Amino acid sequence: MTLEDARVLDAADPLRDRRALFALPDGVIYLDGNSLGAMPAATPARVAETVVAEWGRDLITSWNAHGWIDAPRRLGAAIARLVGAREDEVIVADSTSANLFKLLAAACAARPGRTTILSEPGNFPTDLYVADGVARMLPGRRVRTAAVDDIASAIDADTAVVMLTHVHYKTGRRLDMAAITAAAHARGALMLWDLSHSVGAVELDLAGCDVDLAVGCGYKYLNGGPGAPAFLHVARRLHGELRSPLSGWMGHGEPFAFRDDYAPAEGMARFLCGTPPILAMAALERGIATFDGVTMRQVAAKSRGLIDLFVAEVERRGLDTELTLLSPRDAGSRGSHVSYAHRDAHAVCQALIARGVIGDFRAPDAVRFGFTPLYLGYANVWRAVEILADVLATGAWRDERYRVRSAVT
Amino acid sequence: MTLEDARVLDAADPLRDRRALFALPDGVIYLDGNSLGAMPAATPARVAETVVAEWGRDLITSWNAHGWIDAPRRLGAAIARLVGAREDEVIVADSTSANLFKLLAAACAARPGRTTILSEPGNFPTDLYVADGVARMLPGRRVRTAAVDDIASAIDADTAVVMLTHVHYKTGRRLDMAAITAAAHARGALMLWDLSHSVGAVELDLAGCDVDLAVGCGYKYLNGGPGAPAFLHVARRLHGELRSPLSGWMGHGEPFAFRDDYAPAEGMARFLCGTPPILAMAALERGIATFDGVTMRQVAAKSRGLIDLFVAEVERRGLDTELTLLSPRDAGSRGSHVSYAHRDAHAVCQALIARGVIGDFRAPDAVRFGFTPLYLGYANVWRAVEILADVLATGAWRDERYRVRSAVT
Repeated sequence: MTLEDARVLDAADPLRDRRALFALPDGVIYLDGNSLGAMPAATPARVAETVVAEWGRDLITSWNAHGWIDAPRRLGAAIARLVGAREDEVIVADSTSANLFKLLAAACAARPGRTTILSEPGNFPTDLYVADGVARMLPGRRVRTAAVDDIASAIDADTAVVMLTHVHYKTGRRLDMAAITAAAHARGALMLWDLSHSVGAVELDLAGCDVDLAVGCGYKYLNGGPGAPAFLHVARRLHGELRSPLSGWMGHGEPFAFRDDYAPAEGMARFLCGTPPILAMAALERGIATFDGVTMRQVAAKSRGLIDLFVAEVERRGLDTELTLLSPRDAGSRGSHVSYAHRDAHAVCQALIARGVIGDFRAPDAVRFGFTPLYLGYANVWRAVEILADVLATGAWRDERYRVRSAVT
Repeated sequence: MTLEDARVLDAADPLRDRRALFALPDGVIYLDGNSLGAMPAATPARVAETVVAEWGRDLITSWNAHGWIDAPRRLGAAIARLVGAREDEVIVADSTSANLFKLLAAACAARPGRTTILSEPGNFPTDLYVADGVARMLPGRRVRTAAVDDIASAIDADTAVVMLTHVHYKTGRRLDMAAITAAAHARGALMLWDLSHSVGAVELDLAGCDVDLAVGCGYKYLNGGPGAPAFLHVARRLHGELRSPLSGWMGHGEPFAFRDDYAPAEGMARFLCGTPPILAMAALERGIATFDGVTMRQVAAKSRGLIDLFVAEVERRGLDTELTLLSPRDAGSRGSHVSYAHRDAHAVCQALIARGVIGDFRAPDAVRFGFTPLYLGYANVWRAVEILADVLATGAWRDERYRVRSAVT
């Protein structure tokens, strides 16, 4: 493959017009959209309108006049389309971590005779930490982990809920949602998927897989901005049965009746807690809108093409003597990012950033590259590997300045 | 008092220059800053900078380069000054409701032999709802309410935590923080204050009152924007003892070590949960900054003056035949808003809004007026009562269009 070949692929790419929807700095090849999605070009104006015209001018009346109060449901319906759920099964609220807490606690309450939250070791830390927090509050409950390849057989009559991340944050490995969900159901457990590294990156069919519960992140592939609100999904058949422990006023059936007794709303609104963060919601709504008019099938197909090119170029240039692929080679078994082990992954990552190729480091030894089909092209990927090859060939990463660690790595 | 007299007061007001820090629409007298604070004039540019330059241009590097990761602590320290706490005792995170959950659950765990969360009936609903959610998760725990005038004697050896709102959301009644906190401590209970209607409105001395726990809202008197992040306070002496049940990764001692086991951070960082909402934090930081250079003593003194004027003018014009003051007359016993009962409070409120006087309705029968000393003057207050008098004298509020109820009232 030559740069010219990559340009031919870009010219034939059905998503090639999407790049214009994003404002990316010149000279940057951004391979970190799986950590913080790029800024949509329309977002600054939309946020400014929300700040100046809605908040500044129309003030408190905007709760009704500009649909603020409906934002959690409206954004949830837009996300539902991307994850293959019914539009009344998803709502936007709080953070991924807080939403995990709500659903794990609700799941444990709905399976009172079962004591275990089952997950895998090495799951994204916040998932394990939040499960630990839930188990500490509920006497007799515990978190158990089993290697993901043995997870189906680890589910037993004591498992209240199985909690897994669909695409692993480090390796990019994608799990079989249909099979594991079916295994959980076969043993009477509920199934909760963390879709943080899946939504907007791979095809999902929550309804078709009969998934019970899911959470996901707004600031990665959904391009909602740093710390964007997260979402949660509950299958319609469970809406009446599950109850959020974070029973704030926005989850009440009549929040403005100001009654002393809590009575949860019908449907997903019961999983709301406090007042929705309107400025952040406005940015997230524009981020989700970058998917308008494309199918997740198109997005996923291009993701496969970009990663296949990256992995093949790393090998063609012989970089795999220094870098060890930590991710599945099979496109059907991975998400939209890949990681490579390197003995000084942090320094390699910093050297790449200094040359405009932005990936990230994941402790202890991984360099991670994310491939966002809406704003990344084949020529970008080809060029990124060329720069990676240069960094390795010249030993540029050995420079002292790349040894400095920051608070956020 | 004449309009001219009110203008003389404005000319002598030490806070008169503060109005220029806010962008308020022409023709509006905004008496709802206790529900949603007005937009600071500097906020649009600061939010735009965060969106365009920090997110859009510097992307993921902004977590370090622009201090995103430090925002919860930095904003907490700024709020600490306003509430009389030490700067390491306050942190900004999540919603008021979520923060209540964290602290109530932590308090119950810290008082294992005690079963009761004690509050008052008619407390702001989310406080009672969240307490109910905590009690439902913890076997044997319950929420008990006692009339606020009997609260000290209702605290007993079974009380784990007393949870009260310092300034009541409807009546504006302000409780005696020092006395009630001392009563809780005398009986071995922890004391949690909801400062949502206090912070930025009245003088507070959390350290001097030896308060254990507090939460508060960012979008009222702090002018942080709709659904702004909230804050929480834990006295330094309890930092090692209390643990958040919402144990998300941002509360971990080493969030970027990506370990499987949760180990809470030292200090207030352990009460963080998910990734901080950076765009909303940027707006809140500008809102808090509107208090730079003024003391809460000045703010509170002006609040008293504005409300005394409003109440006196209502009486001078004889409006108290139709409106019944629900709030304390004594400035020492109230916050920075007052409510009046009216048999059709909703319609009166709507008629006022149509004439540019924005207050709000609180079910079932209250019209509520908030007095924000930074951007409201004496002449504004005088004029608001004149318009209120006109609405009542003409019966304008009887118009059919004021009967329409919206989702948010």
